[in-house]
Amino acid sequence: MSANPTKIRRRGLMLVLSSPSGAGKTSIARKLLASDEQLVMSVSTTTRAPRPGEVPGRDYNFVDIESFQKMVEAGEMLEHAKVFDNFYGTPATPVREALAGGKDVLFDIDWQGTQQLRQAARSDLASIFILPPAVEELERRLKERAQDSDEVVKKRMAKAGDEMSHWPEYDYIVVNRNLDQSVAQVVAILTAERLRRERQTGLPDFVNGLRRQT
Amino acid sequence: MSANPTKIRRRGLMLVLSSPSGAGKTSIARKLLASDEQLVMSVSTTTRAPRPGEVPGRDYNFVDIESFQKMVEAGEMLEHAKVFDNFYGTPATPVREALAGGKDVLFDIDWQGTQQLRQAARSDLASIFILPPAVEELERRLKERAQDSDEVVKKRMAKAGDEMSHWPEYDYIVVNRNLDQSVAQVVAILTAERLRRERQTGLPDFVNGLRRQT
Repeated sequence: MSANPTKIRRRGLMLVLSSPSGAGKTSIARKLLASDEQLVMSVSTTTRAPRPGEVPGRDYNFVDIESFQKMVEAGEMLEHAKVFDNFYGTPATPVREALAGGKDVLFDIDWQGTQQLRQAARSDLASIFILPPAVEELERRLKERAQDSDEVVKKRMAKAGDEMSHWPEYDYIVVNRNLDQSVAQVVAILTAERLRRERQTGLPDFVNGLRRQT
Repeated sequence: MSANPTKIRRRGLMLVLSSPSGAGKTSIARKLLASDEQLVMSVSTTTRAPRPGEVPGRDYNFVDIESFQKMVEAGEMLEHAKVFDNFYGTPATPVREALAGGKDVLFDIDWQGTQQLRQAARSDLASIFILPPAVEELERRLKERAQDSDEVVKKRMAKAGDEMSHWPEYDYIVVNRNLDQSVAQVVAILTAERLRRERQTGLPDFVNGLRRQT
């Protein structure tokens, strides 16, 4: 062995949150971001129209289909997918810049995006699936969103079932029975992932001088 | 896919804490055990003499060499090693009983024991290496243990360097700068490991009826 067996450098973490819509993922993500200065959100780009209250650049980057397709063709999307009639994607540049700046990046993407991102990120990715405590609870929350029509709610419930069928592909499962408890669980996952040997940034200098004697 | 793609059952976790002596591992383990009813300690068996204050059955099971060797020959040790002139080992039966009873088990063992346990436990094992913030701090703490002779302190420092050289074999690294912070970090690791998909015990029933549609 050499005198410097394992020099540790910062490896930024890509943390994925997926869930069916209505399971509380957005609330968990907001609380998580507010509690952690080292974590930044990856803002997705979409071709769908903004909903009331959505802020461009914060909730989504809103673009037309032509611009979206140009980004895909230029290789500027880490992942992208078509959901219903709209395109969604993750621009690569802000993610690379955040990781290079020592930040960890949070992604709010679906199972298709996660599969693509997993191939790009490998061991730098940790994925969490948020499940509702019961299907009825999910339906109730989706119906409360008055801005959606009955038909959209029905499509969303079908999509929720499809999305949830992918929970076995995720590293961690959080059942969102209580918002504060779920946030605490996601914080624990983030804390633990940062303490993983290959991501530890706070190791004392002397460890680099340790000589393996086996 | 079948209608029940992934039925979840409880898989107990084996959590290993290793560190050079003097790095604070025992204090961390005690606080962790006091804060978590689902976690029980694996009590090692040793042939060394009890030190003042050590309680048989709590700190160690103290046995003679003949009894120890009989346990090894009978396959009753999950791992065992000789350190200086003494034998140390982990009896398998209490660990199996605790896991079968739905508990997680905490191990305070060295790198040799961890290597052996890793082969026996596979994915049910998560390992944490506790590092001191500086080598000088470690030496100071070892010297404070007035019960040990100078020669023993010297041997322990050499052993500490050897033990620490194995930190790259562990899943997580905790640098013990502050006891409460280190305990919080180990608690976060334990929380996260329990939320891993393959260990989750709190999933709602409906997930077993989800049909994969890909």
